[in-house]
This record gives sequence, structure tokens and C-alpha cells, in this order.
Amino acid sequence: MTLPEALLRELADLLGDGLRTDPGERVGYGYDNSRREALPDAVVLPHARAQVLELVRACRRHRVPVVARGRGTNTTGAAVPVDGGVVVSFEHMDRIIDIRPGDRCAVVEPGVLNGDLQAALAPHGLFWPPDPTSAAFSTVGGNLACNAGGPRAVKYGASRDNVLALTAVTGAGELITSGTATTKGSTGLDLHRLLVGSEGTLALIVEATLRLTPAPPARRAVRAIYRDVSSAAQAVARLMAQPVTPSMLEFMDAHAVRLARDVGGADLPPDAGALLMIEADGDAARLPHDIEALMRAAGGDGLVSLDDAADETARTRLWAARKALSPALRTLAPGKINEDVVVPVSRIPQLVDGVQVLAREFDLPIVCFGHAGNGNLHVNLMYDPADASQSQRAQAALARVFALAISLGGTLSGEHGIGLAKRDFMPQAVDAPTLALMRQVKAVFDPDAILNPGKLLPLA
Amino acid sequence: MTLPEALLRELADLLGDGLRTDPGERVGYGYDNSRREALPDAVVLPHARAQVLELVRACRRHRVPVVARGRGTNTTGAAVPVDGGVVVSFEHMDRIIDIRPGDRCAVVEPGVLNGDLQAALAPHGLFWPPDPTSAAFSTVGGNLACNAGGPRAVKYGASRDNVLALTAVTGAGELITSGTATTKGSTGLDLHRLLVGSEGTLALIVEATLRLTPAPPARRAVRAIYRDVSSAAQAVARLMAQPVTPSMLEFMDAHAVRLARDVGGADLPPDAGALLMIEADGDAARLPHDIEALMRAAGGDGLVSLDDAADETARTRLWAARKALSPALRTLAPGKINEDVVVPVSRIPQLVDGVQVLAREFDLPIVCFGHAGNGNLHVNLMYDPADASQSQRAQAALARVFALAISLGGTLSGEHGIGLAKRDFMPQAVDAPTLALMRQVKAVFDPDAILNPGKLLPLA
Repeated sequence: MTLPEALLRELADLLGDGLRTDPGERVGYGYDNSRREALPDAVVLPHARAQVLELVRACRRHRVPVVARGRGTNTTGAAVPVDGGVVVSFEHMDRIIDIRPGDRCAVVEPGVLNGDLQAALAPHGLFWPPDPTSAAFSTVGGNLACNAGGPRAVKYGASRDNVLALTAVTGAGELITSGTATTKGSTGLDLHRLLVGSEGTLALIVEATLRLTPAPPARRAVRAIYRDVSSAAQAVARLMAQPVTPSMLEFMDAHAVRLARDVGGADLPPDAGALLMIEADGDAARLPHDIEALMRAAGGDGLVSLDDAADETARTRLWAARKALSPALRTLAPGKINEDVVVPVSRIPQLVDGVQVLAREFDLPIVCFGHAGNGNLHVNLMYDPADASQSQRAQAALARVFALAISLGGTLSGEHGIGLAKRDFMPQAVDAPTLALMRQVKAVFDPDAILNPGKLLPLA
Repeated sequence: MTLPEALLRELADLLGDGLRTDPGERVGYGYDNSRREALPDAVVLPHARAQVLELVRACRRHRVPVVARGRGTNTTGAAVPVDGGVVVSFEHMDRIIDIRPGDRCAVVEPGVLNGDLQAALAPHGLFWPPDPTSAAFSTVGGNLACNAGGPRAVKYGASRDNVLALTAVTGAGELITSGTATTKGSTGLDLHRLLVGSEGTLALIVEATLRLTPAPPARRAVRAIYRDVSSAAQAVARLMAQPVTPSMLEFMDAHAVRLARDVGGADLPPDAGALLMIEADGDAARLPHDIEALMRAAGGDGLVSLDDAADETARTRLWAARKALSPALRTLAPGKINEDVVVPVSRIPQLVDGVQVLAREFDLPIVCFGHAGNGNLHVNLMYDPADASQSQRAQAALARVFALAISLGGTLSGEHGIGLAKRDFMPQAVDAPTLALMRQVKAVFDPDAILNPGKLLPLA
């Protein structure tokens, strides 16, 4: 599509040099970490909410797509402007407007990097819980759009659990504000949590009031190795059923353990069939009690070894196995489909076993690891994208992984979102009347369907 | 209104003896704890979701109001059928369908009592966090409809924070299911958290999957007395800014302290200007560390005394002052308007001071106490309902209390909801475009406006 001349003039008036139309400049705003790509017709870089409001109104008048963009770390294609139109990059709306330690909240613009926010909060002894792998270079707005989580979510919740209020521009071109800077509220419909995870399909967030948590002064890690996945999963259930909630509870299946050991050089015994990294954080004085409780719960049938890291160096050494994993994965195959299905914690063994059945059926290595405390496993299907048969098998296996997670009472995504990648699987995860209602809600926020078209909801 | 004969026949066919039309029977379903009252034209007591679905469809065909009802403990009139129609009492849909300790969740019907659920969870070492005062005789469905909280919310969250999935019948007569039994999810629009706090205006919940928390094996209380409200509020901010989150953090202003002492006979010093009840829970081994951290934070300028309850008996003794309060309130005046505004924690002193200015201006006693850790104070305006001037002044003062809370960055309700009582104040708390969007969302769920008409949203 080519943008109407009138719209381009309006955008130029509104944004000045914050309008980019040169193809060389636009190309940097058309991809995300899903490796999908599409060229936007224009890129705008607003400095203020008033500009966002006016540009959405202008695009609506001309029925031109509007795609919000943080830093493009999304893994599902949610930031890719597949129908062209205008990409709104929030890189210049990156101010931390206020940090209010007494109210445990911060008010920010959407373009602030998660990592920059954490650095600004540290002197106040506070943090914002969402900690996706991309935290150093992903934006708060993007985190909210996907309901991003991370390992810490098991104790502190994901993005939706840590937002108090949002100001946003709907697709109808209205500025709305939902919520207040309070941790309780029962005043009307909760529209702000509805916006979280909606991937820019309902509104563009222009300001967020975030719920902060006091930073734990100390942390300690335990590594538990099990004979098999089932023993590890039973330990996860025990760990989650006692009162000391771990601050991280990460899982690696037998393939992941073997890779970390044989390729990554991690120090792991040969009979390791599954691994848990368990971490506690809090007051230094009570940490030993917490670790003791976690080690007690980690023990039991099938435990091969249990290592407690007494200090930060030992902690880093224990985490080395997990860190060695991602680079080691590449030795299996050049291509990877990394999905983040979620199942009830008690179903982790069925998920991991079922995935290995699929690996044999489709003759592709599949490696599972991830956030066991939330039942949120990253399922990595390894294949060679240059090999048509492998690519086809990988896609077929992926569909079966989703079906498996859903059959176990889980769903498509724990923290990455739907975007383009999982859009067509939505009818399997969400029943028809509920999906129809989602479409109607979308139409209320975005009557002309200009916001991030083609994402989240399957095409009608 | 009188119900159409055809609808009555349909309801009788559908519900058998679960249809009540006798005025004597109906009258018990027309009130709630707001002391408002209205006679429903019929009461239905479904046993199964299929009946709920069909009865909503029947009522929709006849454009007859449908008002969901738990046990009528609501304080805002949200359960009162002001436009008549059919009250749906969920007292026969009170099954605990499943308790899944390994997944930290329970699946329940909406009519189960909060207290009965807690009793069923106790043997599993789990609990559901919402703990409104009414817990023993209020339903989970009602708790969800109001986003009920309670003192424990400061650590464990309110209803919205503790729901994983809902199945509900919309006003359009569709059965929808949003969410899965997982603590993470990023799969489409989060419609279930939108239903929480919507007071039966969007849909009737027929099944809830609740997020459970491991029960702390031990608890310990501290009572801190301060010279004045400002010192107590500063202590609240300090308490909330350190890593040990109290499991309760309750506040009483000078009036409340005086009442508890002089009328309730509580053992409190004469120079007590404000009181905090601070509680920690958790592992017995780490509890002393937690209490130490909380006592450290409670200390500071303006502290008069700090008492630590070493055992359950001492704890009960410390809580006596709080328990003495409600009965003592009645000695001030026969009538009480108890509102539950919420403000950012740092604004508690301005709220309490501002309320006392209003008490003088309107010449009525106003007593504040409540959930300080959430900034959620119960503001009790005391008056004689038989005295027209006092009643008028109480209403005028109430409007100013709401305006004050909003001016401090807070809002109308922390945990009671809006119902009828605060409906007309909504335009002050929520801006016009956001309110318009709430109306449109309501229209999507309930196109013929049959669900709980007249509640939550101001009349158009």
C-alpha cells in the first residue's frame, strides 16, 4: 500500500522530523525477533501523547494500519507491519516520569527500557518484577503488550500482575485512563489489565503506572538433579505446595541436560535425567531457613544430587548449565522454533513425555526447558530451515505440541503472546463464543480495525 | 413490572421447583447489606450451568432483567433488583468441583461460601486469599463480582489477583470460558479479570478456577501506637518499602482508638493518636526474623509503643482493640455510612486529615480505619437516619470524601465496589471517554442491557 498524500502531510505537520519515509530508514522498523519482516509505509517517532492521539486519529480517518513498536524483541511477529501502514516507534517516549517509593509505584512512558527502569529503581531498593531474557533491550510498553514474564514470575507475577494503571489511545482515537496508583481498586471495569497482553490490537499505551516490589537484599540458588522428568516434576509440585515460594524454579529436560554437559561443558553427572534450578531471595537472615525449606521439598524419590550455592560464585557456577544451553542448542540444528506453551504444573511430565513422542514421530530433536513453577516450558523444535522436509515436519510437530498442551489443560503461550505465529491456533485454545466475544471487544476499542491488523485474533 | 406469562412458563419448565414466585419467598432475595431493598418478580435457583444459560436466553428474549445473587452481603446495593426481573440465586450451585494441590488451584461453582472453601482447602495446606469480613457467609461468586479483598490482600492480593479462569454466561446468552488453570497466560484477551469486579453487569459466573496459596503455618502480630496519624502513615510507607511484606497492616485513626479504649474497653494509652496492627505469617523458623524487620520499620518518629504478641493469646489480646471498634461505633450514632475509598499509601495522612476537616464542616463524627498497606481506608460517617438534617449532611459529606480521595490520586472503592451507592460518582472517578468505553464493552457482553441494570455505570 502507499499512504495517501494527505495523511503524509498531516503526519509531517504533526511530527516534523519524527516522520520517516525513506525506505532505508523504514526497513529497521519492519522486523522482530520472530525473523518475520514487512516494510511499513511510514515510521513515526512521537515525543508526546498528544502526538499519538492525533496520529491515530489521522490514520483512522484514512483507514491506515497503526502498529505500535517497542524495540522489536517480540518472538511472534506481533511487531511486524504485515499490512503496511504506519509503525509508531516509542523510542522517544522513554521517560521515567516519577518514582514513588512510598507508594511502591513508578510512572513511565512506554518506550523506557525494562533494564533502564530497573537501574533507576535500584537506588530506591525497588524493582519491577517482569524479567524477560530481553530485559536489557526491550521496552516496558512491549513487555505490557505481550504480558511478558520471565523466571521471576513464579514468585512476583508477570506484567499483568504488576500494573496499576494505564493511559492509552484506542483505535477509535480516544485517550483513556484506567486504574489508579493503588494496589486495590473496585471502581468500574478493569480495562487496563485487558490491555495487557493485547499486543497493540486495542490501544497504544502512552503511560503506565507500574506496581513495584522491594528488592530482596540477598538470593541463594540450589541445583537439583533427578533421575527422570517425572521425579523432577513431582518435586516441582512439592516445591509449589509449601509456603516458601521460590524466586525462580527453572527446569531442564534430559536433552537439555545432555547438551549443557556434552556441548556446553557444564559439570553434570551422566545419570542426570532432569534438572531444576531453584532460587530463593529475601532477607539475608531468613534466607538459610528458606533454602532449607526448598531443599527439603526438592528431596524425595528420584533425586540424584542436590547442590547448594553458598555464595555468588557458586551460584554462577550452578547457573552455568542453564547458560550453556542456548549456544549448545545450535549444534543440534541451524533452525529453532522456540514456543512457550503453558500447562498446569502437575502436567509437566505428560507434556515433556508427549513432546518426546512427537520428536520421534517427526524425527526432529525437541528440547524442553523453562519456568517450571508456572508450568511454562520453552519447547525448542530443532530443524534445518534449508531442508524443506525438515521445515515441514517442524511445522507439523509444532501444531501437535500446541494440541498436546491444550489437551493437558494448558494453552498456547505463557509469556510470548500470539502475534502471527500462533494466531491460527487460537480457535483450538479458545472456544468459538469466547473468540467471537474477543472480536467484538476488539471492535469496540478499534472500530475500523486499524490497530495491528492480522495479529492475535485469527482472520475472520 | 410483572413477568410475561410465557417467560414464567419457560422458567418453570427449566427450573421446576427452583422457580419461586410467591411474594413471601421473593422478599428474602431483594435486599443486601446496603439496607436497600426491591422485590424481584421471580427468583430462580439453578443447579447447573445449562439452566443458567437457558434462563438468561429466555430472559433476553423477553427483555427481562437478570440479577445474580450470592448471599446478599454486598454493601453497595449491587445485589438489589431495582428494576425487578429475575434474581438468580446461586445457593444450589455451591459445589467444590476439584481441589488440585499440585496445581495450587481449585475449581468451584459460584455459590460456594468463601468460608466453606477455606475449610475444604485447609487439609491440603492451602487457602484462597480473599478474606472479606463476610467470608463465613459470602460466596466466591459474590467475592469475584465485587473484587472483594480484606486485610490479607496487602500480601496476597484481592479476588482479581487470585483467579485463573472463569466460565460465565454473558447477557447475550453465550457460554464463554476465559483463562486456564495456569499462573501464566498470554493467549488472547484476558476477559476473566475483566469480569472480576463487574458486579454481574457483563456475565453470570458459573465456574471459577481459583489460584491458591500455601497456608503459612504460623503468624505473629505487632501493635504499634503512634502520637499522630502522620507518624503512623510514615511508618506504613516504611513498612511497605522493605522486603518483608506484612500479611496484614491495619490502621485506626485517633477517633477509632478513643472509641476502642473508652467504649470498647481496649487497653490503649491515652496519648494514642493512631494505631497500626501489623502481622507477619510464614514458616515458624523465619517468623522471628520477619517480625524483627517489621518492628524495625514500624519504629521511628512519633512511635509511642510497640507490642509484640509472643503467642496466639497475646495476639488475640492485641487484636481486641480492632474487634472492639465496630460495636463501639454504634454508640456514636445509630446510622453509619461505611465507604471504602482507596488512596496511594503516601496520601493516607492527607486523607485522614481531610476527612476530619469534613467532620467539623458537616458536624458529624467520622471514624477512619482499615487496610493501610493498600491505602484502602474505611471511612465511617456516623449520623442519625431519623434526623433529616443529619442524613442530608452525611450525604453531602460523603460526596466530599469521594472528591477528596480522587483529588489525592485515589478512587471510589478498594474492595466493596460501586453498585448503586457510588454509581453516580463514577463520572468524577473515571473520565468521560473511558466511561463511554466501559459502556460499549458492557453493550458487547450484554447487548439488551438485561444484566443487573442500574448498577456500576451511571445512567446514561
